Amino acid sequence: MPINRKILLNERPEGMPDKHTFTFTEEETGEPGENQVLIRTIYASVDPYMRGRMENVESYVEPYQLQEVIAGGVVGEVVESKSAAYEKGDIVLGSYGWQTHYIAEESEIRKIDASIAPMSAHLGILGMTGLTAYFGLLKIGKPQAGETVVVSGAAGAVGSTVGQIAKIQGARVVGIAGTDEKCDYLKNELHFDATINYQETDNLEQALKDACPDKVDVYYDNVGGEISDAVLTQLNRKARVVVCGAISAYNLTKPDVGPRVQSILIKKSASMEGFTVGDFSGSFKEGAEQMAKWLAAGQLTYRETIREGFDSIPDVFLSLFSGDNIGKLVVKVSEPQEQQ
Amino acid sequence: MPINRKILLNERPEGMPDKHTFTFTEEETGEPGENQVLIRTIYASVDPYMRGRMENVESYVEPYQLQEVIAGGVVGEVVESKSAAYEKGDIVLGSYGWQTHYIAEESEIRKIDASIAPMSAHLGILGMTGLTAYFGLLKIGKPQAGETVVVSGAAGAVGSTVGQIAKIQGARVVGIAGTDEKCDYLKNELHFDATINYQETDNLEQALKDACPDKVDVYYDNVGGEISDAVLTQLNRKARVVVCGAISAYNLTKPDVGPRVQSILIKKSASMEGFTVGDFSGSFKEGAEQMAKWLAAGQLTYRETIREGFDSIPDVFLSLFSGDNIGKLVVKVSEPQEQQ
Repeated sequence: MPINRKILLNERPEGMPDKHTFTFTEEETGEPGENQVLIRTIYASVDPYMRGRMENVESYVEPYQLQEVIAGGVVGEVVESKSAAYEKGDIVLGSYGWQTHYIAEESEIRKIDASIAPMSAHLGILGMTGLTAYFGLLKIGKPQAGETVVVSGAAGAVGSTVGQIAKIQGARVVGIAGTDEKCDYLKNELHFDATINYQETDNLEQALKDACPDKVDVYYDNVGGEISDAVLTQLNRKARVVVCGAISAYNLTKPDVGPRVQSILIKKSASMEGFTVGDFSGSFKEGAEQMAKWLAAGQLTYRETIREGFDSIPDVFLSLFSGDNIGKLVVKVSEPQEQQ
Repeated sequence: MPINRKILLNERPEGMPDKHTFTFTEEETGEPGENQVLIRTIYASVDPYMRGRMENVESYVEPYQLQEVIAGGVVGEVVESKSAAYEKGDIVLGSYGWQTHYIAEESEIRKIDASIAPMSAHLGILGMTGLTAYFGLLKIGKPQAGETVVVSGAAGAVGSTVGQIAKIQGARVVGIAGTDEKCDYLKNELHFDATINYQETDNLEQALKDACPDKVDVYYDNVGGEISDAVLTQLNRKARVVVCGAISAYNLTKPDVGPRVQSILIKKSASMEGFTVGDFSGSFKEGAEQMAKWLAAGQLTYRETIREGFDSIPDVFLSLFSGDNIGKLVVKVSEPQEQQ
């Protein structure tokens, strides 16, 4: 019987998580019961939102419990099945998180079609990441052809998808990212109309004025903080701010303080709306089908950064906050199609 | 020919306006031309939004120009008509502002029916003030029966109307105001479900928790600042914040800084939306008819504070920011139905 290795929340972080935040443990997997399957993890997802679940505060999802596995998206392979719905070798998507094996009920997983795209894409552009971009932009941002859409965290998994969907809608797209390499990627590979490297800019407001001569109609915000303060000064009348993430605030130990937004919202008849992808769970099928179509048609492209090895998961998670990654970040935990 | 006395913007205020902000001047009115009428002002409106127009910044309305009349709502009496549409003695509504007389084109004014309510009410509950409450609450806040609606600046002209409309919708209404007299008025005359005197509260968050055991579904914000910071901590999932005014910020000379809102909006899938009543100009007729119906049926009530004398207008305007007034503030400039 295989050994299941697990990463637990050891203590709630104050500020940036560190080695003490997590602890590794292992146990025998046990045998799947009737209608259950044993899964071996192939890819584990690491995502910024997980930082929020490490806090013990009321939010849109339950906080992680101490000494329990860090839950999150995973792709795995069925290695033993006592379910009529699954057979050995099936590739499935689950949300059981940072562990090498899992015994799942049928309802906890679903098969994925690895012929559409590499299986890891089901954690990214074809998964929750892509749907986060899709619903936030189209249902809240509602960009119209010719409007200007600004995206922060633009080279990240969500941001890079948002910009491409906005282009499909006929919008002019401006990406904000933190390295020249990211900006080159956005311009040359994703065909963003303009980019701003905020690390190289003394005056972000001026850079935004230059990049957005017609001001900002939709701002898809993944970062919060001073970058968003600056974008908010450039809103157009009736602008929509899609508040998806605030990665600049996730590890703060001091209060997240900045210019109050009320006066801007009044002057511009503008809106800010927060969301999480679960708000749109009733429409996931529609969104996933559209994303798969665009991907198949070559209208969407994506990058992913794949790190290797279960032991590296905590460090890979922490690298989300250093601003180095382009695209979706996943950890390869095992090779598919191999017997253990 | 009567003398027209006018109040001009003398200099743009930094911080609180004062005597230097305004200057009085006078001139002969001249004769109305073809299709024009000469109006004598009876009531002049003073409103918080006027402070914004004294700044030279891009906003939803043009800033006031230096050495020009402070524009705003007025009720006047036609004293001479060269228009087939108006006759002497007609009571009309205009927006020509702080002057004792005005020669108007037909299109600049409209007759009001003073039999529905006292003519001053057309500057308040039956005018832009009432429509601001109506559209902001119903089109942006969208309160449902049983939801909790919090209103700041609750004893003001807009806030007191918002609370009553929210009650008509079946919501539970909590008002925030700055004196016990105001809170008594809200509870006893307007039947608010709870009130908070923020001047007498050490811990506004706790007071809100006590007053809103089911948290806040709609927050109609007239004030901004620390009061709004506190209300935002108490939002329910899918809460709607109607950003109507930010009176706490209008006279600030330092930056208006406070907790950033992004994390709250994400956690609660909540929205904040700014507006001005002009956004709904296409629906003014619908709103005005509904407000008049509710008023006639006794479902809406209002208070107004009427100050006397044209010379007092600047001081009455400044008193908006001292927090002393209940209901709509207007200045009576002349008696109706008298010949000059």
